[in-house]
Amino acid sequence: MKRVNVAICGFGRIGQQIAELLLNRSTYYKQKYQVDARLVGVCNSSSGLIDQDGLQASKWLDKAQYQAGLTEQKFLQQVQADVIIETGPSDYVTGGKGLFYLNYALTHNMNAIAVSKGALVVEGKKLINLAHQHNKKLFFSGATAAALPTVDLFEYNLAGCQILEIEGVFTGTTNFILNDMLQHECAFTESLEKAQVKGIAEPDSSFDVDGWDTAAKITILANTVLGADIKIKDIPRQGISHVTADHIRDWKNENLTPRLVGFIHIKNQQIQTGVELRLVAANHPFAHLQGSNKCIRVLTQEMGELVVSGGASAPLATAAAALKDFELMLKTYC
Amino acid sequence: MKRVNVAICGFGRIGQQIAELLLNRSTYYKQKYQVDARLVGVCNSSSGLIDQDGLQASKWLDKAQYQAGLTEQKFLQQVQADVIIETGPSDYVTGGKGLFYLNYALTHNMNAIAVSKGALVVEGKKLINLAHQHNKKLFFSGATAAALPTVDLFEYNLAGCQILEIEGVFTGTTNFILNDMLQHECAFTESLEKAQVKGIAEPDSSFDVDGWDTAAKITILANTVLGADIKIKDIPRQGISHVTADHIRDWKNENLTPRLVGFIHIKNQQIQTGVELRLVAANHPFAHLQGSNKCIRVLTQEMGELVVSGGASAPLATAAAALKDFELMLKTYC
Repeated sequence: MKRVNVAICGFGRIGQQIAELLLNRSTYYKQKYQVDARLVGVCNSSSGLIDQDGLQASKWLDKAQYQAGLTEQKFLQQVQADVIIETGPSDYVTGGKGLFYLNYALTHNMNAIAVSKGALVVEGKKLINLAHQHNKKLFFSGATAAALPTVDLFEYNLAGCQILEIEGVFTGTTNFILNDMLQHECAFTESLEKAQVKGIAEPDSSFDVDGWDTAAKITILANTVLGADIKIKDIPRQGISHVTADHIRDWKNENLTPRLVGFIHIKNQQIQTGVELRLVAANHPFAHLQGSNKCIRVLTQEMGELVVSGGASAPLATAAAALKDFELMLKTYC
Repeated sequence: MKRVNVAICGFGRIGQQIAELLLNRSTYYKQKYQVDARLVGVCNSSSGLIDQDGLQASKWLDKAQYQAGLTEQKFLQQVQADVIIETGPSDYVTGGKGLFYLNYALTHNMNAIAVSKGALVVEGKKLINLAHQHNKKLFFSGATAAALPTVDLFEYNLAGCQILEIEGVFTGTTNFILNDMLQHECAFTESLEKAQVKGIAEPDSSFDVDGWDTAAKITILANTVLGADIKIKDIPRQGISHVTADHIRDWKNENLTPRLVGFIHIKNQQIQTGVELRLVAANHPFAHLQGSNKCIRVLTQEMGELVVSGGASAPLATAAAALKDFELMLKTYC
């Protein structure tokens, strides 16, 4: 049976969820792929833990077991992983440690699965080329709307089709806030607070409500799926913080629903991108997206329109998206 | 460059569309997969045509070029294909010639892509096992709702997830008829005639309007994706021919939309299936499916709910679904 060693970098809440799920699915991987998948190491920003026999939860939950300084290059040199899963915080300016981990892995005989977006937003196209040059694989379903299929739609479900338009409600937080405002006809700040209390919005919500999160996902999709070379800062961008209860009442009277939409339109081989607040009619596929649900709509030459909605924003769902990538790796390249 | 020889059995309108698309994508396959894909043969129920250098449209459109009797076993023995695409008529009782082609291909060193449903409804599970035993691949996206992703959702987008429920509007024809009745508040027969004039419904519409088409797709999904062993005739089944204009008016007054829904529920490892006419509320994902659009809703343990709609019913879309399978074969197994 083939052994596949997994390491998780930027190990935190999502990383732990991935580790648990990987362990739970151990027998499944043996049966379905004849693969003995083991978690051989985890590291956070200051320390790490390696066990070539495979880590159990009792060990990765015990901070006393971690070795200080066993992180970054030192960690990757020692861990002997076949695949790394990168789950640290995102840095949208430099790519941060996430970019280091992905660069190092792909150039040192490891496949990589990215869950955080920063590195891909900054260097998505370069990372894909790097993987290609080194005959390694880079997956990033978890980084682009997590449980909502986006990247894999183009790679699998629409393989071979000519893409004309991509549009989507890609940020669960803004969708939650707009839905709450619609329901209660209240002020933006009131619905934002509810989202923060529920843990849906971050304490610093500007990344989501100013449209940066949607722009980040548009950047990744445009540069990786469509081969564009777009910088996040160049994407025309609207947010939702200017929306008032009066706006909401007026729109409801007209039977219109506000949605923060990211889009990529392809015409005459030119790519146009943007993030804008749109008012959609009741029969539009984005109108009935409840809670923090997300949605992607793709228009193709051959298969017409495809709309996918769902993608619950939950740690388990994000972990399952990362391990979907792990499984696609087992399926296609082992 | 690796040569991949393709043959199309049951060559008719859909087969021609596939042949055209395969030819148009020839350069794309070379660039993306380093594969020289050639259509080396086509056959219908009485004759066939083989050219190891690759067929062009001028040849496959010219009936005078076909050799009488070059079909079935004789065709497959001579054609030297790496993969066959089966696009003939469906026989839901015996599996018909489609079943012969798939059986023969998988046991004689050929991969197979099924576009027609008959063989899979009758022997889906056996065919998958046969492919497995002979280390060959069997794909059938085109046979289960064509351009609407169904089989590949489970294989790729939801890989590893525990499936709790599958429900869908799987038959474009019945959806078209119900939408037309809703719009015009007219009799079933009137909307059926419109569907027949438009070529959406067959002259003998009973397979669609009595729920058999939906039951066929449920049978394939249950037996292939979930490993069940269900016979189409054992699925409890409703149709739509009993719906009257009075029903439609009453439902509209209550803001309910009728949809013919096929479902698979999994509880305590028991699988329950059915086809039923359901009345859905305005915020239900099935409510706003326009025209002959289709939709699938999947509930999973890890990723929550996923809803996919689209899947235009058009020969080009069905051809693109078959060639999506061809590409997944190139991607994963060549």
